[in-house]
Amino acid sequence: MGIEYDDELLASLVFDGRGLMPAVVVDDEERVLMVAWVDEEAIRRMLLDGETWFYSRSRQEYWHKGATSGNTQKVLAIVVDCDADTLLIRVHQNGGGACHTGTYSCFTRMMAHRVGQP
Amino acid sequence: MGIEYDDELLASLVFDGRGLMPAVVVDDEERVLMVAWVDEEAIRRMLLDGETWFYSRSRQEYWHKGATSGNTQKVLAIVVDCDADTLLIRVHQNGGGACHTGTYSCFTRMMAHRVGQP
Repeated sequence: MGIEYDDELLASLVFDGRGLMPAVVVDDEERVLMVAWVDEEAIRRMLLDGETWFYSRSRQEYWHKGATSGNTQKVLAIVVDCDADTLLIRVHQNGGGACHTGTYSCFTRMMAHRVGQP
Repeated sequence: MGIEYDDELLASLVFDGRGLMPAVVVDDEERVLMVAWVDEEAIRRMLLDGETWFYSRSRQEYWHKGATSGNTQKVLAIVVDCDADTLLIRVHQNGGGACHTGTYSCFTRMMAHRVGQP
């Protein structure tokens, strides 16, 4: 039990100038929950722990998602994109939701939408 | 016909030190297709044009997704996250797919997965 990972793919990841890359977190039905940032260490913790860990750019520290709220995320799979500079993390979302505002997803505010003929 | 948008929400967006934010592109069934970067100008073009525009960090230029391949993305909706620093763009994907490698999604390579009891 735990997370199995591909060493070569892990070593091929391309981080930005700050040593970070964005990670899109989706649930087991592929709904987008949130986007956060990871570096090598956050990924290492995630693989060991089996729950999501991120790096906070504003607080400059690692955070274990749900450590205080209980809304942890069990990692089911981590998928890498074509450029190896973005992760898609599939999780089982525990508790009420992913967002600190109390909603299930962090994406709730419609900024724009198509009108008229689709 | 076109894209209607919320002026206030648009003005509230928080870009990073480079003037950029990540945009997660999902299709009409919420499958994650790709992640790319936008700045104010790329968003402006997207709202006017109704198709996705991004900013390439490596080429330092705007790109109209699918301009050469024909695999354009018709914007259906743009949703903002709780911190107003990430976009979720819902699109109708035209052509074969979103990825320059020829796949439908850019996320095809499984780096890690849970084993044993789910």
